[in-house]
Amino acid sequence: MSRRKICVVITARPSYSRIKTALDAIKEHPKLELQLVVAASALLDRYGTTINYIKKDGFDITTKVFSVLEGENVTVSSKTTGLGILELSTVFDNLEPDIVVTIADRYETMSTAIAASYMNIPLAHIQGGEVTGNIDEKVRHAITKLSDYHFVSSEGARERVIKLGEEPSSVYNTGCPSIDLAENVMNNLLDDFDPIELYGGVGAKEELFDGDYLVVMQHPVTTEHEKALEHINKTLHAIKELDMPTFWFWPNVDAGSDGTSTGIRAFREHHDGLPIRFFKNMEPHHFLQLLHESKCLIGNSSVGIRECSYLGIPVVNIGTRQMRRERGNNVIDVGYDTEEIKDAIQTWLKSSPPEPSIIYGGGKAGEKIAEKLSDVELKYHKTITY
Amino acid sequence: MSRRKICVVITARPSYSRIKTALDAIKEHPKLELQLVVAASALLDRYGTTINYIKKDGFDITTKVFSVLEGENVTVSSKTTGLGILELSTVFDNLEPDIVVTIADRYETMSTAIAASYMNIPLAHIQGGEVTGNIDEKVRHAITKLSDYHFVSSEGARERVIKLGEEPSSVYNTGCPSIDLAENVMNNLLDDFDPIELYGGVGAKEELFDGDYLVVMQHPVTTEHEKALEHINKTLHAIKELDMPTFWFWPNVDAGSDGTSTGIRAFREHHDGLPIRFFKNMEPHHFLQLLHESKCLIGNSSVGIRECSYLGIPVVNIGTRQMRRERGNNVIDVGYDTEEIKDAIQTWLKSSPPEPSIIYGGGKAGEKIAEKLSDVELKYHKTITY
Amino acid sequence: MSRRKICVVITARPSYSRIKTALDAIKEHPKLELQLVVAASALLDRYGTTINYIKKDGFDITTKVFSVLEGENVTVSSKTTGLGILELSTVFDNLEPDIVVTIADRYETMSTAIAASYMNIPLAHIQGGEVTGNIDEKVRHAITKLSDYHFVSSEGARERVIKLGEEPSSVYNTGCPSIDLAENVMNNLLDDFDPIELYGGVGAKEELFDGDYLVVMQHPVTTEHEKALEHINKTLHAIKELDMPTFWFWPNVDAGSDGTSTGIRAFREHHDGLPIRFFKNMEPHHFLQLLHESKCLIGNSSVGIRECSYLGIPVVNIGTRQMRRERGNNVIDVGYDTEEIKDAIQTWLKSSPPEPSIIYGGGKAGEKIAEKLSDVELKYHKTITY
Amino acid sequence: MSRRKICVVITARPSYSRIKTALDAIKEHPKLELQLVVAASALLDRYGTTINYIKKDGFDITTKVFSVLEGENVTVSSKTTGLGILELSTVFDNLEPDIVVTIADRYETMSTAIAASYMNIPLAHIQGGEVTGNIDEKVRHAITKLSDYHFVSSEGARERVIKLGEEPSSVYNTGCPSIDLAENVMNNLLDDFDPIELYGGVGAKEELFDGDYLVVMQHPVTTEHEKALEHINKTLHAIKELDMPTFWFWPNVDAGSDGTSTGIRAFREHHDGLPIRFFKNMEPHHFLQLLHESKCLIGNSSVGIRECSYLGIPVVNIGTRQMRRERGNNVIDVGYDTEEIKDAIQTWLKSSPPEPSIIYGGGKAGEKIAEKLSDVELKYHKTITY
Repeated sequence: MSRRKICVVITARPSYSRIKTALDAIKEHPKLELQLVVAASALLDRYGTTINYIKKDGFDITTKVFSVLEGENVTVSSKTTGLGILELSTVFDNLEPDIVVTIADRYETMSTAIAASYMNIPLAHIQGGEVTGNIDEKVRHAITKLSDYHFVSSEGARERVIKLGEEPSSVYNTGCPSIDLAENVMNNLLDDFDPIELYGGVGAKEELFDGDYLVVMQHPVTTEHEKALEHINKTLHAIKELDMPTFWFWPNVDAGSDGTSTGIRAFREHHDGLPIRFFKNMEPHHFLQLLHESKCLIGNSSVGIRECSYLGIPVVNIGTRQMRRERGNNVIDVGYDTEEIKDAIQTWLKSSPPEPSIIYGGGKAGEKIAEKLSDVELKYHKTITY
Repeated sequence: MSRRKICVVITARPSYSRIKTALDAIKEHPKLELQLVVAASALLDRYGTTINYIKKDGFDITTKVFSVLEGENVTVSSKTTGLGILELSTVFDNLEPDIVVTIADRYETMSTAIAASYMNIPLAHIQGGEVTGNIDEKVRHAITKLSDYHFVSSEGARERVIKLGEEPSSVYNTGCPSIDLAENVMNNLLDDFDPIELYGGVGAKEELFDGDYLVVMQHPVTTEHEKALEHINKTLHAIKELDMPTFWFWPNVDAGSDGTSTGIRAFREHHDGLPIRFFKNMEPHHFLQLLHESKCLIGNSSVGIRECSYLGIPVVNIGTRQMRRERGNNVIDVGYDTEEIKDAIQTWLKSSPPEPSIIYGGGKAGEKIAEKLSDVELKYHKTITY
Repeated sequence: MSRRKICVVITARPSYSRIKTALDAIKEHPKLELQLVVAASALLDRYGTTINYIKKDGFDITTKVFSVLEGENVTVSSKTTGLGILELSTVFDNLEPDIVVTIADRYETMSTAIAASYMNIPLAHIQGGEVTGNIDEKVRHAITKLSDYHFVSSEGARERVIKLGEEPSSVYNTGCPSIDLAENVMNNLLDDFDPIELYGGVGAKEELFDGDYLVVMQHPVTTEHEKALEHINKTLHAIKELDMPTFWFWPNVDAGSDGTSTGIRAFREHHDGLPIRFFKNMEPHHFLQLLHESKCLIGNSSVGIRECSYLGIPVVNIGTRQMRRERGNNVIDVGYDTEEIKDAIQTWLKSSPPEPSIIYGGGKAGEKIAEKLSDVELKYHKTITY
Repeated sequence: MSRRKICVVITARPSYSRIKTALDAIKEHPKLELQLVVAASALLDRYGTTINYIKKDGFDITTKVFSVLEGENVTVSSKTTGLGILELSTVFDNLEPDIVVTIADRYETMSTAIAASYMNIPLAHIQGGEVTGNIDEKVRHAITKLSDYHFVSSEGARERVIKLGEEPSSVYNTGCPSIDLAENVMNNLLDDFDPIELYGGVGAKEELFDGDYLVVMQHPVTTEHEKALEHINKTLHAIKELDMPTFWFWPNVDAGSDGTSTGIRAFREHHDGLPIRFFKNMEPHHFLQLLHESKCLIGNSSVGIRECSYLGIPVVNIGTRQMRRERGNNVIDVGYDTEEIKDAIQTWLKSSPPEPSIIYGGGKAGEKIAEKLSDVELKYHKTITY
């Protein structure tokens, strides 16, 4: 019997991190064949050349597709999506997958969803049903309406997908595959982990990072992209005033990313001697270990909400990007305000770390997803339940 | 004060017919400026060159965009959508509309919705919230999730859009603008209407059409495109056996349209002397008058469900395309079966015509839409209500 | 040692016919690996679904790419070319060919040439250096300027490519591979060849074709596309007046093809009982045998100039499409004029057939091309010779 | 009488500089209407946002088109070209120009040439016929073969275009419009020109630039893009060793631009206190005045060959990018070698400046081009002359 062809499209660094254990499980599953398509910012140097990590992790790349248009505006985000559809249609036409898998809610994710659903290929969506209050939400729920199978990460997400009119039997709460990795990292902590030796980075000297440190990862918020520079400056000043060793990660590609990047670059030009080390990218398991040993994660990354809740790591979550996502006790929410950010960090520095939580699952999500993909009924026709 | 720029994208003949009174109202509204983009199959000879009707109706075309890929499969439908996004992004970037309007649920409609919502342009959707049970439904509800304003056609549609998590204050039941035209036609019936003189067409001689006649309009059903030829043959045989004068309309462009068209062409080759006259296209008000004087509309056009319910015209609705749409007493539903189709037509031929209904509104929808577009708050940010 | 990867892009029926023996020779060559990309009109039903013939001939398709935009104008020809570049770039990026081969001068051929030359992949052009006096000529010579190796079909072509500033050592007069097929057909004539049994077609009854017959193949001329209908009508009337059994082939996809097709369709509607049988397509070796047994080929196909010169078949060549191509004694040139066409056909009907000629080579071109591709130095950098 | 619509497509900073006086002349000409399309890297911040300079110079932008794909490789250059064709076809279809003008030989320039020539719009090419020995040459001569009118910059170029088989009456040696600007700048030197006050830039302090200084502008060479980093390092070291105040310009977008940019960035990180000031962009007249007052231009910009020959400014031209272009006495050619570069600069520092030359014309080229565009016969059909 021939194996089911499962085509997964990776378009960005965070999607890959989040899905990795599911990719492993699909690859190993006796009834499945993995087709791995790498596209959009996952191919670009400016965003850490995710494809190199994918290869290093032992995956074969089936097809790669350059599809990101350059520009500092929303027009090019839209065009990138259109170009992605054009090209993924050709890719699917040639690969003939049995199921296509799309991940989360970044704008290019829609390319995968449209191409698969329009081509009558059963479509599985990972991480639908969540609520965040930004442009991603339009994308996320629209993809739910195009998808045939829903692998959600929490009970709240499951209920929301069903409310959106999806057949309950097509919605599976497997927990988030990103938790699988957190579980692995916790069970296999590296003894002599040295991020600067591993990744270089630029900025403050290595010696500073022997003791306590902070981690910052802050992305621009798409619908407010003109304010991206102002936002990032609030955080930069808070960190500057705390004057504590800090690892800082550059943002992903996004309509407003250049606002954020410009802000960081300008700040560096005008502030010599800051105790900050900048990284472009880091392999997920290293990133999680870095967080595990940190005092606090600051910014608006979903890692703060998701993996950090499972790991019990303190988080200061800034602004609207993670608004309304379910969260554990490990998160203090603040606005784009230097004082608020500083106070929240200091609160965590003075407290004992929060209790771990399993609202986003307790591991093994990758295996559950692969197993379900291997025996789910193939279908691409559905109707709203009300 | 400068007028609000309302950009409407027309991609197909039926969308234009349905929206025409809204276009008139936008054009005439003192606070609005109409930007009219004509794209996709609305530009193609094979589908009746809708753009010529638009010009003839007195509208200026702001921009035209060829975007349909040729082929007899779902791959090209998907690529057409991607290309549409690419190009409409450029169009919107240059026209800078205040609101973009997208219509109904054909696959290319998604191009307009993605480009506008990704570019942070407030998006109005006309005819969301309906339920039909086919691929269009995935598209329709996904567009609802991308849209900021919802102009729905019935109370059932309004409730469904709200259930999908949309803010009730953003959902307006204006009735369907297609009913406005039906109202106009009824109030202005032409005395000496002669469709063959006006449109030519090919097939049976003009003399046959002095008395009672039937009208057929049957489109392929996208998700079953390989069966399109079989489906159309059932109808062709039913009409042949009834041997009654019939006006027959070619289908729209669609993934399976060539199945339907091939079926019709082959049937014609092998059956000389049928009392059938074939048309490619007809201006909407002429089409409605043609229906008004007919004994029955056969096929799967939404006109049967919508305008014919208001006009009280008997309809034999075939197959799944209009499945689950709200309908009046004027519709008999049948399967793809020659006998069933024949019997249903004969039932109507023996009955008195059904009572008119206003489930899809009672007229003036175009004016209501234009008025709302002129004073609605401009916004492109929303979050699900649950 | 790994074999050289030779990527050939087929975009249309005539290109395939012409290149087939080279494909065979590349496939069989011990030092070469054939990558076969099928794109554009070679995938479309309307143009005979060339891909089916390719498969039937035993070739594996590496990748297929739908890239033809629909429309009746030059805008879509241009867009088809742009889309071809977009997609072929991705194809080449994934296949990593050592040499790309492009054929002749149709507008989509430019897609292959641009993608390969811009991506620094050595580019071989087949059939450069010819002169025809139409839009194809702009394309053909521009491709010469982008190409690194030139496989030309005649001594005149070789001289012209060198005059264009190409290094003489990069120009190889192998003769035209289409002659190889003609040679094969002549050496393997089928005993009971029956085109109607093999291909069906529509129109005049089979019985008519027992004795002498004509063959017509007339394509629209791109730069005069509005006159395509007028042109084809001249030929249609000439054939009608001769009232002789005729096999007629539909034209290729082209900006004006619908003018030609419309003309043929309309003519058929208004003239019952013509002794004409219409075909969409025919496998090349069948087509050559059909020509071999015919009294005369009428139209503007390059087959008349090329294969028919080698085979000694009378040709009436209409209009400008083959203008200025080198030709043997088998061609009478006429304008778009019913009388001229009729007279020229009658001249041939009364004459003995012309002498064969080897101006386009004497066979084995496919093998010569493959051999050269296997040992030519790989390079993509050149400069004009003057 | 309606004016001729002349559509000029600007895709990059250097093309705009070079064509500016022709744009002025077209705009002012009573028989012409200027349609100005701004596309590709001319819209991007990373390349100096040329569009802002265009607006500041008083031109209205008819349409803008984002078309650059992001990536560090030749695949995206090719895709950028394909996307440009797709979109410019739509632009031309809507603008309906009488003549399209394309400039020079950058890879995206081919988009304009293909779209116009395929759409049967008469095409004028500025700066054809030159010879440089790199990938640009393939592009340049291919565009010549697609063009209907040739506005060349030198007598050598005129002869080469004619050798390429173009009708001599379609080739006009107007001189290069870039010389017009040089002429204007010389006649209107600013008294208190201060580039740092005007443009900021980053790097060495302003005080350094009171006396003698150098200017560097070095672009990556497309066909050797992997060596771009090595090349730029040779120059960086030469300048470092000379330790003389230097204005350094970032390269244009190109397949290898990130190699060059990375080299510059890395060098800066590791060498504090260099007397180098970096600029992204500069208005052409300011750039020419900067050169006029400099001791030497180093790099591979065509400005060194062209404007500097007219102005009599010493140039050290590095590597193959300008290879085989006609040049005056103002150029010393060197390889990618720190010592050679240093020696050549020192030679110029010790010599008196070279004599001006008019090999690229003596001014008024813009007016000559506009005048010719106003009365040339409109045609898009041609055939090779041999």
